Amino acid sequence: MKYYSSHISRLIEVLGKLPGIGPKSAQRLAFYIVNMPEDQVEYLSGVIREAKATVCHCKICYSTTDQEVCQICDNPFRNQKQIMVVENSRDLVAYEKTEKYDGVYHVLHGAISPMLAIGPDDIKLRELMQRLQGEVEEVIIATNSSLEGETTAMYISKLLKPTGIKVSRIASGIPVGGDLEYIDEITLLRALEGRVTL
Amino acid sequence: MKYYSSHISRLIEVLGKLPGIGPKSAQRLAFYIVNMPEDQVEYLSGVIREAKATVCHCKICYSTTDQEVCQICDNPFRNQKQIMVVENSRDLVAYEKTEKYDGVYHVLHGAISPMLAIGPDDIKLRELMQRLQGEVEEVIIATNSSLEGETTAMYISKLLKPTGIKVSRIASGIPVGGDLEYIDEITLLRALEGRVTL
Repeated sequence: MKYYSSHISRLIEVLGKLPGIGPKSAQRLAFYIVNMPEDQVEYLSGVIREAKATVCHCKICYSTTDQEVCQICDNPFRNQKQIMVVENSRDLVAYEKTEKYDGVYHVLHGAISPMLAIGPDDIKLRELMQRLQGEVEEVIIATNSSLEGETTAMYISKLLKPTGIKVSRIASGIPVGGDLEYIDEITLLRALEGRVTL
Repeated sequence: MKYYSSHISRLIEVLGKLPGIGPKSAQRLAFYIVNMPEDQVEYLSGVIREAKATVCHCKICYSTTDQEVCQICDNPFRNQKQIMVVENSRDLVAYEKTEKYDGVYHVLHGAISPMLAIGPDDIKLRELMQRLQGEVEEVIIATNSSLEGETTAMYISKLLKPTGIKVSRIASGIPVGGDLEYIDEITLLRALEGRVTL
């Protein structure tokens, strides 16, 4: 017995392949979409197509943009000598939202993961090395605090050692507002190791 | 400072309006979509458009289908004298997945909610009453166990009283596998009230 019409089945299937959308959410979304007014569905479908068609990667930092050079790399008020290395454009946006960082970025589009067979050549590392031939004072490694992120951070720091450029890593520790009771042991240890003198 | 290009902003905005998708998920989905291969984006966009274009409501039970009369209403092996009333097509699918119910359905497309100003005329109640003029033996009310669902169930049972048709309500109680310790008081009371002799 088929529970849905073939078009709804196909919509559920394609939505269910998107990240963070399980079978239940996909079903809910599909029924919601087919019950939306027709012009809104047209709009949704069009916006998806358009975003894909216009979006590309900045030729300097590889962030997601719709220009050849992104607004950040193109901004003369940003410190072009300080490069923050992030795994993806979402992480870049997260730091931009702090409104305090005035350097530039480098988006790796992934992290080294032997488990998923992602090696150094599969992410934008060569491109990072090329950028370092210019005037760069500091590379801040802001990959995630996961196994892959840490592996990538370690790899980059070794790779950069011969260049003599200052390499730093964002701090690990207790998140602001975090309750020690609920924080895992590794984070607690990291926070202790990274303690700062007051 | 804009964090995204205008096309990505628009995509995040439109995705964020879908049910169950918050600002973070919308951002994640948008970046995922623009990084998908172009043919897959075309496919996604097309499937959405197509599903909307072909899907309609069954003229008997108002379930979501792509035919004039849905597969269930059109099935001679289903008991057309037993009608299960559900709030939406997702609830219909949930009961279909049990593979044990062999009656038919009636999809209300909502529930009575004074809070949201949804009255009896805003859901497919008149259409249900019209169906009851045929040979119907039982109406099973399977609206949700929420305030709106219970209000709708009560309303339907009163509406159907004069017709003499048997009206039943699906049981409230402990979900199978549920641990009493974690179940709210109202459900515990309902389970007690609805106890069955062994």
